This record gives sequence, C-alpha cells and structure tokens, in this order.
Amino acid sequence: MRMYDIIHKKREGHELSHEETAWLVKAVTDGTVPDYQISALLMAIFFRGMTPAETVDLTWEMARSGDMADLSPIPGVKVDKHSTGGVGDKTTLIVGPIAAACGVKTAKMSGRGLGHTGGTVDKLESIPGLHMDIPRERFYEIVKQTGIALVGQSGSLCPADKKLYALRDVTNTVDSLPLIAASIMSKKLAAGADAILLDVKLGSGAFMKTLPEAVKLAELMVDTGNRAGRRTAALITDMDMPLGRCIGNALEVREAVEILRGSGDARLTELSLELAAGMIVLAELAPDRESALSKAQEAIDSGRAFNVFCGMVSAQGGDASCLEDTSKLPLSPCEHIVRAQESGYISALDAETCGLAAMELGAGRESKDDQIDYGAGIVLLANKGSKVEAGEPIARLYAREEAQCERAEKRFLTALSIEKERPVSQPLIIERIGI
Amino acid sequence: MRMYDIIHKKREGHELSHEETAWLVKAVTDGTVPDYQISALLMAIFFRGMTPAETVDLTWEMARSGDMADLSPIPGVKVDKHSTGGVGDKTTLIVGPIAAACGVKTAKMSGRGLGHTGGTVDKLESIPGLHMDIPRERFYEIVKQTGIALVGQSGSLCPADKKLYALRDVTNTVDSLPLIAASIMSKKLAAGADAILLDVKLGSGAFMKTLPEAVKLAELMVDTGNRAGRRTAALITDMDMPLGRCIGNALEVREAVEILRGSGDARLTELSLELAAGMIVLAELAPDRESALSKAQEAIDSGRAFNVFCGMVSAQGGDASCLEDTSKLPLSPCEHIVRAQESGYISALDAETCGLAAMELGAGRESKDDQIDYGAGIVLLANKGSKVEAGEPIARLYAREEAQCERAEKRFLTALSIEKERPVSQPLIIERIGI
Repeated sequence: MRMYDIIHKKREGHELSHEETAWLVKAVTDGTVPDYQISALLMAIFFRGMTPAETVDLTWEMARSGDMADLSPIPGVKVDKHSTGGVGDKTTLIVGPIAAACGVKTAKMSGRGLGHTGGTVDKLESIPGLHMDIPRERFYEIVKQTGIALVGQSGSLCPADKKLYALRDVTNTVDSLPLIAASIMSKKLAAGADAILLDVKLGSGAFMKTLPEAVKLAELMVDTGNRAGRRTAALITDMDMPLGRCIGNALEVREAVEILRGSGDARLTELSLELAAGMIVLAELAPDRESALSKAQEAIDSGRAFNVFCGMVSAQGGDASCLEDTSKLPLSPCEHIVRAQESGYISALDAETCGLAAMELGAGRESKDDQIDYGAGIVLLANKGSKVEAGEPIARLYAREEAQCERAEKRFLTALSIEKERPVSQPLIIERIGI
Repeated sequence: MRMYDIIHKKREGHELSHEETAWLVKAVTDGTVPDYQISALLMAIFFRGMTPAETVDLTWEMARSGDMADLSPIPGVKVDKHSTGGVGDKTTLIVGPIAAACGVKTAKMSGRGLGHTGGTVDKLESIPGLHMDIPRERFYEIVKQTGIALVGQSGSLCPADKKLYALRDVTNTVDSLPLIAASIMSKKLAAGADAILLDVKLGSGAFMKTLPEAVKLAELMVDTGNRAGRRTAALITDMDMPLGRCIGNALEVREAVEILRGSGDARLTELSLELAAGMIVLAELAPDRESALSKAQEAIDSGRAFNVFCGMVSAQGGDASCLEDTSKLPLSPCEHIVRAQESGYISALDAETCGLAAMELGAGRESKDDQIDYGAGIVLLANKGSKVEAGEPIARLYAREEAQCERAEKRFLTALSIEKERPVSQPLIIERIGI
C-alpha cells in the first residue's frame, strides 16, 4: 500500500477500506510515513469527511495502536464518563463517587489540563499526598474496594492518536467531526470500560459552538461507540457560562465536596445528578432515568457518595481530612475582589475568557511544562442571570501575586456583560442522545 | 504572520492578501515553515481553489523567489512559447527558428525531460558538440545575432516553485488548476519574455484529459500572464496521438529538420505554423493570424527558418553539418520492426503509452539521474487513422539492445487499437484563447 494512493482516494471522496485504515494507523504509529503526507490526508479528511465505517475503523485502529486496558478482573459493569471539556467542569470528581455509591464501577484514566480548561489529574493532585501514577494492579484493587479510581493516562495510550492530534493542532485540521470523534472514542475504547457516557459541551466555553454541530458530534460518537460494541450515550449540556462557582484546581475540589455533601451550586448539582443517573442506566442498575436520578440523589443525601470520594482519595495516598475540612486544601495567598462596575443583570459571562483569566492567575498551563499553582483560581459570587449592584463583589480571585490578580481582573471583566433586562435563561441539559 | 492562520483562512475559503502570499512564498523559500504545514495548505488550496488575484500574487512571488532574467539588453519583442508537455512534441525546435526568421526574439530557457515526455534540453544535447549551459552574456549575444537561443534552466529559477512542486508531487495536490497555472507562469515571468504563447495539450498523452479542464487552465494562465503585464495567449491542441512521426531525442531533431525543410508530417507542420504565427502576432510583427501564417510559411519555403536553426546550433557549439546530413546524428544500433497484428484502421495510439515505450528504449529518464540514450526511440510508420494490413510494419524501434526493443514492443502494442471502421478524425487545433 502507498500513502500517495490513500491520499488520492480520500481526496476524491472515496471510502478507505478497513485494510487501508489499518495500514495507515500502523504507518503513523511506526513513523514510516512522513508528516507532510499525513497532514495532506488530514486536510483531505477535513473536506471530505469520513463514513461511519471509516470512523469506527480509525477509532479501533488508533485504540489498538497502544496499550488496551483489560478491566475484566474488576467485577461489575465498568462505565466511563467523558466530557468534551469545559471551564469549571469538575463533574468527574462528583459523578464518579455518586455512581460508585450506586454500584457502578468507575476505573477512569484522565488527562492533564492544557489551555483554558482544567484537567481532572491536576484537580486531584491539588489534594495533599494524592498521586495519580498508580500501578495497574493497585488501580484495579482500588476500584474493587471503593468502586472508583481516577488515575493518570499512561504514556502508551493511543500513540497514533497522539501523533495525529499533534499534526492536526498545527495544520488547522482539529475541527473535523469524524477526527474529533475518533480521537475521543479511541481513548475510551483503549481505557476498557463496558459503557461510555459522553458529556458534549455546547457554548462559548466549549469546543462546539452551535447546537447542530454538537448534536452531530454526539451522534457520531454514540454511533461509533455502539458500533465498536460499547454501550454509549450522550448528553449535550450548556457551557455558555462557567459551570458552578469555582474555577481552579483546589477550589474545584472544594466545590466538588460541597456538592457531594448536598449543598452548593444548583446547576452543577443538577448536571452531576443527570450524569450519574446516565451512568447508572448504562450499567443497568436502574430501569430508567427517573429511578436512576432518585438513586443518585439518595447517594448524596445518605453521605455514601462523599464517603466513596474520601475512600478513593485515601486509597490513592491523599489526605482525606482535607475533604472533611476543605480549609486545609491549598489556597493562594493573594485575594482580590472583583466588583460590578454597573448595576443590572449579568447577561453574559463568557466561559472561555474566565478560563483564560484563571490561567493568568496560575491555575492552568499554557504549555505542557508549565507549573500549576493549585491554590489559584476564581470563586464566582455571581454568574449569568444574577442581578448585581454597582460596586457589589462578583468574584474573588486567588493568585500568588497581586500583579497576576490585576491582569486577570482586566480579562475577567471582558467576559462580563451587564444589562438592564434579565437574560433569557438557558436550559442546562440541552439534549439527550441514546438515553 | 503565522502559517496556522494562513491555512485557516484558506481552509475557510477566504482570499489570501498580497502580504500573506508574499510572506508564505518567502517562508517556503527560506524553509522557515515546516513541510507538514505547507502540504496542509496545498490540500486546502486543492479544495478551495484560488482567486485570480491570489493566483497572480503566487505566480509573481514564486517568480521573484529566485533569479529574474532581464532580457532588456536584447532589442525587439521577446516571445516565449511553452507547451504543457506532450509525447513527440519537438515544436520548440521548429517554431523558435520559424518565428526568429520572422523577427521574433526567442531567448528561451528549457527543462530536461522526466517521465514519458521528453525535454527540449535533452533533444538539443543529442546534437554533437551542442551545449546548453551558456553564460548569460553569450546567451543574449546569440539571440541578438541569430534571433534565438535555447539554453538550460539555471538552478536558481523559482526555488519556491521547486519546493512546492516537490511537495505537491508526493501529497496528491499536483492537479489543482491555480497551482499548475502559477507553477508554469512563475517560470515564464522569471524567464523574462515580453509575451508568452501557451500550447495546452489535451488528450491521453497530456496532463489535461478533458476539454473543459484544458480550457479552464488555458484561460487561467492567459489571465494570470496578462494581469502580470505580459501579453499572453494560448492554443489548446490535440495530444490523443503522438505528435509527428518520431519519439526520442536525436530522432526528434531529425524530424524538426524535415519540417524546417518543408517536408514531413502534415499535423506537426500545421501545429508548428500555428504556433509560430501566434508568436508573430504576439510580437506585433503581423496584424492578424492569417498574415502571420503566410510569413511563417514563407520562412520555411525560403530556407530562412532552417538557416536560423543551423546558426543557433553552431553558436551553441553544435555541429550544424549534422542538420545538413541528419544521418550524422546518433542512432541506436538495434533496429526492431513492429508489425500490425491485424488489418483495419488504427483507432487509437495512446500517446502516453508510446512515451513510456520510448522510455524503455532508453530515450527518457525515470529518475533525475538516469542516463539518456540519445539515439533511442520510435519512428512511427502509421498513426491514429492510418489504414494498415496485418503484417505491415507500423513502427521502427531503436535501442542499444534487442531486449529493450522486445519489452518496448510489448508496451507499444498495448497503446494500439485496430478496428474495422475508420475513426473520426480529431482537429489538431481545438481552441484559441486570446489570439
């Protein structure tokens, strides 16, 4: 087989055969085709798209290009939850423990954050003592014991995807729906869960900016997962405003604890219960969404979900007393109050800009080797739809230095629009696909 | 400026500004953008096309990326003729001398052949003693003296085009009309002529296989040339059968001499007169095509065109006595007769396949460093439309060894179809654009 012919076939809009896709992914993984041919193919895929069969082939082959987790030693149905990434999205920390408290097994490998969205690994590592590089045997043991373990991704997970993503990133071919779907789903297949719940974010802070696009991506991923033999469903949820009140690693752990203890932000609670219910249904531990929602609520009310979280943190070496008393979690020394500059309703609070402001505070990485300040971030005292008075505090910023806070405040204020009219409120759960 | 943004702009179908194209070509020439970004851009251009303004910008910038010939020391209107490449196309050797005999100045830089079409440089180098690497001053002097000089391309002609072409070749982005037009026209601009006549070949032996495509390419090149300030016109001519009777370097020189002496193949004579007339009109040395055609015919009939050719060959160090007596030109020792295997009319003689057969005889290069056998090639005794009897000789093959002839004969026969019905004859000059 020749890469030249594969580029030609795709450029002309024909379907690549299973053998061609397998050859391609192997050649990408082995480094036997030059980058300039791969990037020409990626651009041809951007324009021509991929058929469902091609998408599944690419997904499977990328999954098989590295280590495939075998979760069969863990009894029960293993369900993975994946978010396409959002600002202030700490649902993994909340939903996993709730679902686990209801009998779902969550053996999840997560990534670090890059850019304006945070990563689960970084959030958990803000808990003193906790570590994410857990050997496989111990990882399985923790899941068996507590129902959940959240570990870092191993280096050999989907190397073909890693290579292709790096090229897409510099050749402007990231936003091709089949390539996005294959990239996400290949990692899910390699991670080994029996069922997959996808949280596709929609809005200014998300990768998908329009509903039709988000629906297409969600349907494509659900179809790909199901064709690959994994029960897969998706929610499309709003990311036009930051999710919850906290942005920043230790601050988000605090907020997760709040929710698991039954208090805290209503929207974040609603989304967490929905996602947990989705996982419970996919694991066939409840007959329908309504009864699954009750189970999830009960797991919070009884304290079982919080206990599961504490158990997991302890098992991964973390100091669970920090969860009992969250003031023991890191908090950056410099506190800076942002005040409303006029009176009215917050008509917009752009999530992406908030994420970038948090990055300026030290909560995120611009490049892979940047150090994170776990205690940095934003606590929102108001969000989209809130009524505020001029001079009223609307956010607290935390950083190491006042200069960082001042820069971040400037940016934060560009995220904010205040108007006289109350804005139309947007539903949180926009669509359900396959659930 | 960032390559990423340029790829994005083109991918989204927007027009690149003059500054962006200039930046791009400079970065390509300097090697400061990686190949994988260039090839992604090329594929985006394949899908999105280019506007006329973008095409002219790219053409000019590629022309300026290397040496620009300044032909102003040569008095008179300098006209360049360019063929998009065909099998047996020796018209440069014929048309240049005819036009020069009529007062047109031809200071032409030509390339070597690669693949199934021959190059003017190789054809001329088959004349003993002739050399193509002529210093600039001497080149101009020869044109002033004889009206014409044909020299080899210098190494620094359009380095940006060279780089882009090499990438297009391996990423399946050769057949983009604006990229083809810019590639050809950049070299014409750099070559410095005041006017350009294009011979766009159409048919099985040519790059353009359909008339609409050929027309589009011709119109695009004519438009690009005129926008760049060079009077430009084009003919679209048939290349569904080999042009003339000879394929192979020294054999084609023999045939050129025949035509310049007023005998030889009628189609080749017709095309040569048309092209020469086009150059005469572009040089404003005749008011219209008809009177230009008479001038061209007269240049042959009077022997002036042949004398110009002999003068040029001598001036470039070649042995002009080989033109007076073409039996002194190289001829490979092994002669092999191909006979018709059935009786009827030749309904097809695929030009590309004939070119490949000539390559097998040693007349062409498969890769850049291959040695050419100047005396090898094919003499056609019949062509498309000829009536033949089974067993009748239809071609003579020349090579160093009989084994080459046998391989080439096999291939040659696959180019041939013989049918009972006389085929519909195709006009030679299919369209005229801007003339």
